[in-house]
Amino acid sequence: MTKQELFENILRKKSFLCVGLDTDVNKIPEHLFDESDDAIFEFNKSIIDATADLCVAFKPNLAFYESLGLEGWEVLERTVDYIHDNYPDQFIIADAKRGDIGNTSAMYARTFFGNMEFDSVTVAPYMGEDSVTPFLTYAGKWVTLLALTSNKGAYDFQFMTDAVTGENLFEKVLKTSLNWGTDENIMYVVGATKAEMLSEIRKIVPNHFLLVPGVGAQGGSLEEVARYGLTKCCGLLVNSSRQIIYASSEKNYVDAARNEAKKVQVEMEILLKEAGLI
Amino acid sequence: MTKQELFENILRKKSFLCVGLDTDVNKIPEHLFDESDDAIFEFNKSIIDATADLCVAFKPNLAFYESLGLEGWEVLERTVDYIHDNYPDQFIIADAKRGDIGNTSAMYARTFFGNMEFDSVTVAPYMGEDSVTPFLTYAGKWVTLLALTSNKGAYDFQFMTDAVTGENLFEKVLKTSLNWGTDENIMYVVGATKAEMLSEIRKIVPNHFLLVPGVGAQGGSLEEVARYGLTKCCGLLVNSSRQIIYASSEKNYVDAARNEAKKVQVEMEILLKEAGLI
Repeated sequence: MTKQELFENILRKKSFLCVGLDTDVNKIPEHLFDESDDAIFEFNKSIIDATADLCVAFKPNLAFYESLGLEGWEVLERTVDYIHDNYPDQFIIADAKRGDIGNTSAMYARTFFGNMEFDSVTVAPYMGEDSVTPFLTYAGKWVTLLALTSNKGAYDFQFMTDAVTGENLFEKVLKTSLNWGTDENIMYVVGATKAEMLSEIRKIVPNHFLLVPGVGAQGGSLEEVARYGLTKCCGLLVNSSRQIIYASSEKNYVDAARNEAKKVQVEMEILLKEAGLI
Repeated sequence: MTKQELFENILRKKSFLCVGLDTDVNKIPEHLFDESDDAIFEFNKSIIDATADLCVAFKPNLAFYESLGLEGWEVLERTVDYIHDNYPDQFIIADAKRGDIGNTSAMYARTFFGNMEFDSVTVAPYMGEDSVTPFLTYAGKWVTLLALTSNKGAYDFQFMTDAVTGENLFEKVLKTSLNWGTDENIMYVVGATKAEMLSEIRKIVPNHFLLVPGVGAQGGSLEEVARYGLTKCCGLLVNSSRQIIYASSEKNYVDAARNEAKKVQVEMEILLKEAGLI
């Protein structure tokens, strides 16, 4: 998917919501296991159907599928196929945090872009350029590079200050990676729990899309993220996982998930209007 | 496996070799596909049988298995089971470069330590403490944390100098992670292509095991690694992948792999003797 197509989807849906499919067998409604031998996929399918018109992206978190072994990997493949076949306007992100030496990253790229229909993969920058660029060789595919994450451990290394340039590690990641790709094939993870940092980040990457986790369950404010992060092409995908997909553990979970997604979409519509984008 | 058990295996086998199972369908001998419907597993099994008495660890590289989809994941599971059942003295490392927010890393830990019989997982440090510690909650299991990698991209961020402490990022990773675990449950990836750095690294982590890739195909010298890296408990696992497992693409590939592994083991035996460990 191109940046322009993603932006057009955002304008049409009045939403820059990404729904995180962190599907946990211990959290999905119990009645699904009584009704189906394929409860995990059924859960994903119903969440996707309930929210697809309210969001522009889905983000399966690989850990949740891998932890189920073969069955999990198979459900992941079918979930991606289901989204791709039924909602071809969705941007699908493999939240996999991969990254290894060149020939190994090329294998991961093949996994997510060759074998499966993902549009992007989250990649950790620690190993540098040759661990990232193999993901950039697929036309229309994206790297979602970790810059400033939303967890407590982000403070361990990401704020380390460079003795030479005075920039933080996450700023160095942003600047250095500008040489590896463009705002047409790299976007960045920037946690919403540090929304005030977005204005600094926008000075380095004024036009790139940012994938923002941490709104809702992790405490970030959507309004602040929009204030500091919106660009003339929107430039934001805000992820919500638990708050939407586990809005209810009862039989009404589909309606509950839709209601939560709708609340976010309505707020996003207001923010897009205030920014003059729609 | 405890550190003491790993050390005893090294003394008994006179080897600190780790064989990397980077099994690539495009590189394994073609005749295997004529002889078996299960060529990838047969290749792994024959390499494991040919080298198990010469090495103390096996390291499947997850990317190679994931790139084959469901079949790859299934071969990975059987490979780990095969090693665990037939060679229980082998230390098995999932070269997966994982690392995510706490609840997600906990899922990855369950995958490799709960569902599969790995002894360790390689973890990228970018997201800090809570991305690493969930892997340390399993008794007898280890984190193999990236510190200084052997690829060109290592120079992009790992040598960044902290304005406050003057230490490089990889040194900061070493020092900071000393608070997360011990030399009984954390080891570090340190590339052999920078063997002269090992003496500096040993000042920070004098007793930890180091997993050293990059000997052979990537150009590192085993003798230099031993000179700067050996401790009184050995403290080294040196990985070789391509040089051993693809020593031949013909019918003699098993003997060729064994010969290459034997060459390395013989050199390691000399180095262990020179260091007074055996």
